[in-house]
Amino acid sequence: MDDKNPAYRLYAAYLDCINSRRFDRISDFIQDDIVRNGEKLGLVGYVAMLERDYRDIPDLSFTPEIVVAAGGTIAARLLFDCTPRGEFMGLAIDGRRVVFAENVFYRLRDGKIGTIFSIIDKAAIEAQL
Amino acid sequence: MDDKNPAYRLYAAYLDCINSRRFDRISDFIQDDIVRNGEKLGLVGYVAMLERDYRDIPDLSFTPEIVVAAGGTIAARLLFDCTPRGEFMGLAIDGRRVVFAENVFYRLRDGKIGTIFSIIDKAAIEAQL
Repeated sequence: MDDKNPAYRLYAAYLDCINSRRFDRISDFIQDDIVRNGEKLGLVGYVAMLERDYRDIPDLSFTPEIVVAAGGTIAARLLFDCTPRGEFMGLAIDGRRVVFAENVFYRLRDGKIGTIFSIIDKAAIEAQL
Repeated sequence: MDDKNPAYRLYAAYLDCINSRRFDRISDFIQDDIVRNGEKLGLVGYVAMLERDYRDIPDLSFTPEIVVAAGGTIAARLLFDCTPRGEFMGLAIDGRRVVFAENVFYRLRDGKIGTIFSIIDKAAIEAQL
């Protein structure tokens, strides 16, 4: 791992921020005009998404399994082991425990995340239901 | 992009190999005991998977949108624009055109891919049906 790339430190601090639900600090990591999977969420919309995720999945936690950073891009494989209360990704989870991964790319701009390309392993969740 | 990392050249050559369906050359890039998403496919099983993919999706082509390599890991976001003939990921595509991405990590060992962690954007495909 190229620890010299400051993106690794940024990403660790970002995960710590969202895992500790300190959304007042999220503008340290996320650009005002953040775009996620083609959707122009903006910072307010991004925080609203995280708040909804934590409401729907009270035991949500982001655990990095792989992090690769080079140039202005970070790639991460995140692991989740949690119990969504109702629906998640259109699937009726209803409090069952599910274990799945998210493979996600972050494009940085001026030292903050500007664009996110995320894929959650829906097929793996379906296989557990 | 850190072009000095030889993994970029390896990955470009690997994509060229599978896009040109030169599976006789795949052992240049893939370890004999390749594991994909926890499944011990081995080289023979991996080629069988690719042959099945090309049979089910005759116009399959792997187009890299993002490639990040550091240390012994490559991360790629691949784009697909194709027409699966029948079922794909349990979805009845039946020759319709679908556009989707795969976010995938490759762990290298001795200069070849040894482990793959792939997620295909099934939710995006479902939204197009």
